[in-house]
Amino acid sequence: MKAKIIITPKKAVLDPQGKTVENALAHMGYQGVVGVHVGKYVEIDLAPGTDRETARVALNEAAHKFLSNPVIEDFRLEIE
Amino acid sequence: MKAKIIITPKKAVLDPQGKTVENALAHMGYQGVVGVHVGKYVEIDLAPGTDRETARVALNEAAHKFLSNPVIEDFRLEIE
Repeated sequence: MKAKIIITPKKAVLDPQGKTVENALAHMGYQGVVGVHVGKYVEIDLAPGTDRETARVALNEAAHKFLSNPVIEDFRLEIE
Repeated sequence: MKAKIIITPKKAVLDPQGKTVENALAHMGYQGVVGVHVGKYVEIDLAPGTDRETARVALNEAAHKFLSNPVIEDFRLEIE
């Protein structure tokens, strides 16, 4: 079982990495880009038979407490 | 239309960030974790009506050339 946490800067927060990638794509000659956001991706391998709800609660807490900075970042947790 | 590029360290490459998150989860008292991989997440907003195949080729090239380091990282491109 795998859990994925995707952490992205909030829309209102300046994203210089995203802006840089956007400019790089334009320099490459590709024009179809409206905006780019760069974030972090955390993939967690869970032991077989892990309880999905316990995992969700624990990982949600971890994402909120130390994986993301809730002032400037949003996170999304997916368990599959 | 959105494209997502997920860049993760290759399995054979040391992932100190992942190891740190794994230890932090154990310290938090959560035991169900077998492994953690930390990577980058790039979300690209594409202009409406963008050709999917052109986007795929351009973004694949970008991911290979400057978004990832192919020696130590793998990437996955999704267009939706």
